[in-house]
Parts: sequence; C-alpha cells; structure tokens
Amino acid sequence: MPGVRLKLTIAYDGAAFKGWQSQPFGLTVQDALEDTLRRITGGRVVVRASGRTDTGVHALGQVAHIDVEERFTPAKWRMVLNYNLPPTIRIMQCEEVSRKFHARFDARGKVYRYLIRTEDVLTPHEIDRVWMLPEKLDGKLLREATQLFVGRHDFVGFAAKSNDEPKTTVRTISRITVSTRGSLIGITYHGEGFLYRMVRLLTGAIVQVAQGREDLVAMKARLEGTLPPWTKAAPPDGLYLVRVIY
Amino acid sequence: MPGVRLKLTIAYDGAAFKGWQSQPFGLTVQDALEDTLRRITGGRVVVRASGRTDTGVHALGQVAHIDVEERFTPAKWRMVLNYNLPPTIRIMQCEEVSRKFHARFDARGKVYRYLIRTEDVLTPHEIDRVWMLPEKLDGKLLREATQLFVGRHDFVGFAAKSNDEPKTTVRTISRITVSTRGSLIGITYHGEGFLYRMVRLLTGAIVQVAQGREDLVAMKARLEGTLPPWTKAAPPDGLYLVRVIY
Repeated sequence: MPGVRLKLTIAYDGAAFKGWQSQPFGLTVQDALEDTLRRITGGRVVVRASGRTDTGVHALGQVAHIDVEERFTPAKWRMVLNYNLPPTIRIMQCEEVSRKFHARFDARGKVYRYLIRTEDVLTPHEIDRVWMLPEKLDGKLLREATQLFVGRHDFVGFAAKSNDEPKTTVRTISRITVSTRGSLIGITYHGEGFLYRMVRLLTGAIVQVAQGREDLVAMKARLEGTLPPWTKAAPPDGLYLVRVIY
Repeated sequence: MPGVRLKLTIAYDGAAFKGWQSQPFGLTVQDALEDTLRRITGGRVVVRASGRTDTGVHALGQVAHIDVEERFTPAKWRMVLNYNLPPTIRIMQCEEVSRKFHARFDARGKVYRYLIRTEDVLTPHEIDRVWMLPEKLDGKLLREATQLFVGRHDFVGFAAKSNDEPKTTVRTISRITVSTRGSLIGITYHGEGFLYRMVRLLTGAIVQVAQGREDLVAMKARLEGTLPPWTKAAPPDGLYLVRVIY
C-alpha cells in the first residue's frame, strides 16, 4: 500500500466526550474519529494526537496524524470525514505531510486559552464552555499571578499524576496574556508543552490570587517547592486547546 | 392576590426551539417558560415578550414580563426559574417593575446582531450559531450596503408577511455597525423596531452586495419600491436578539 500521512487540525466540543484518549468505557474523541475512519476505510486507522485532553476540555486546533491509502485528496478527506463525523467534532484542516511527521513528537509548542465569566449566570451559549465565577477578580493581582509562572520552571507543584510520567517536570511558559471583554476574561498560555492538568491548576492558582484568597509569596513558594503542591484546578469547561505549533 | 409584575431578561439557544411564540406543535421558548411557571406556581402565568423570534434565532437579552404572587424576591425568582428551566433558556436578570410596564408596548428600541464566518467549516462551538459562508466578502461593499438601510425608510420591500400585520412598515434604523475578528463578521443593527424577518432579509441583501451579486443601485430601488421586494433571507442560525431598550 503506497498511502499517505495526513495532518488533521481538529476542533471538538469537550462537553460531548470523555476526553481525547481512547478508552473502554465512554465515548472519546479518538474513539469517534477511529470509528468513523473504520466506517470509511473498512480497516483500522490509528489517530495519533499531539497529546491528550481531559473530559470536558475543548479544542479549536488539536492536531493529529493518520496513515491512509491515497483514496481521496486531502481536501476530499476533510469533506468525507466531516460528513461522517458528529457535529461535535470538525476537521478544520487536512494536509498531506511527510511520513516523518509525528503529531506528538514534532510539536514544538502549544497555546491554551481559559475563559472565565465573572457573573452568577451564563447564557445557554456559554454553558459548559466558560467557567462561571460569581465574584469579581482583581485585575492587577490576576496579571501579577500570571507573570509568576512565565519562564522556565519545575512545574511539579502544578501538575497531577498521570499514567505515563514525563521524564522531566521542567517546562517553559513563554507568555501568558490576559484579555477582558465586559465580564469575560481570557487567559492565554503559550508554552513548549504542559504537564498533565497543568493549565487548569495554574488557572485555579491565578484565580485564587486574584480573589485575594492566596498570596503571591505563597504561590511562589509552591512553584519553588518550599510549600506543598497546588491542588485546586479550574474546571475543564473553560479550557481550550487553541493551537499546536510545529 | 396582591402580586407583582416582573421584568425578565432572557437568553436562549434558538437551535433548541421552534421560535419564541407558543404554538400547538413543537416546543417554543414561551411554552417552556409557561410550563416551568405552571410547575412552580401551580397556575397559569402568561409570559409576554417584547416580540417574537423565529425558529433558530437566538436571544441574549429578550425581555418579557410576568405577573406572579409575591412568593419570592426577584433574585429568588431568577434562581428558582433557572433551576427549573432547561439549560437552553436562562433568566439573566429579574426585576420588579410597575404594573404599567409592558414588555412589548414600552419597548423603544432593539439591538440585533448577525454573525457570519467566511469559511467552509465551523467549529462545533459555532454550528447553529453562526452563518457559514464559504466565500470572501468585500468589506467596502459590505459597509456601503449597511449604510443604505440606515435612517427612516418604508421597509415593506425587506419584510415577510406575518399573521398580525403592522399598522405601518416605516421603521427607523439608527445605526448599523460592522465588526470583524479574523474570518468572523458581526453586523449589529440598532433600531426602534423591526418588521417580520427584516433583519435576516437585510443581512441577506447586504451579503449579496458584498459578494458582488447585487449592486447597490438595484438594492436602493428595492428600498424605494421601484423594484420588487427582496426575498433572500439569511438563515436564522447567525441571528441574536441582543438587547431591548426601554
């Protein structure tokens, strides 16, 4: 079989799935994609993503690769996939790539965004898609907290245990930006990579500082390992994998 | 019964309902609200809105009034209603108003927004909520077309027949603004009131001009009544009733 490798850029509604990674119980995004590919090709096609996302976490630009026969052009593959997938998963882009391209090992960086609405009610359009936080946040403290985490750090105090332990817990966050539109706050994380649950733990920490419940000095001590690890993660609802950088 | 009049500001997901207005077949927003009020109060409560919205049209700030017994404070009414309503309808605000307040007759203006994505695919988060238009629009023509409709005009050529005919088809649009974020275009209409299907017909017309399929002179002739009425309405998916002004 000659075949080609395709790079898929994928958006999905996290509320509809038990996360990315295939599992025996509960539908995951990987399962839905592999089931659809089986129906189209009649064979088994493994979908390899840049990394997992948890139950409830959204993607606007997850990236995965697949090896398929040259049955359709990439543009046609995208159409056929979108036609057969549920509307909760969309293939945004489909390109032919070298056989050497690997969605996970070649990823050089990721961009995540976390959305918070500081109100006590969400519109139906925001339910499951934004963290509802019925309390004002101190914008100055919020920005100071984000800056604490920028740079190269050992983030072991801001990660959860995962099945496959990483070799190192040192990561570099190149930039964290904050945007506000009315009562909607967006926190965008740019980094080379993130540990398991790290963005939700960082967001939980930043919010607690912005609420005046934790101080920056204590948070710094957690980052330096002189205080116990941080455990209050923000819920998955507001988290989006925006882009994977190659 | 002493009772109070409450002004409700309501958001709903248009894709989940057969429009606002109560009808014998198919669930409408008014039906869902009145059913919920019946379950809470044990009696019949009529919900009177500022006006109807069609199947598929969304609301961020529809306004309605209800007369209820003084069983709860307005804040508590909001909580109880949201607890009992489906997540596709949210009461954003609930205030006590004078018995003379009428959601429809007192409305002095409305703001509608129409969202368009000029791509050939939508993320799951935008499906049913944005008009997908796989074609670039000419921004200059688009802005010129919007300006054609600003002011006081007889909009009979940009309205559909409705069951209750208005006394006059003359309306004033005070302002139409266009915003763009990447490939997302928002057209916001500010006016004293709009005829049946008028915003969707205007949006359809503006888009056809921006695609170079219709020229401004012909569109002006339709507005002046020297050419037949315009009939190509934009789909309901992208339309939001943003605010009612009192």
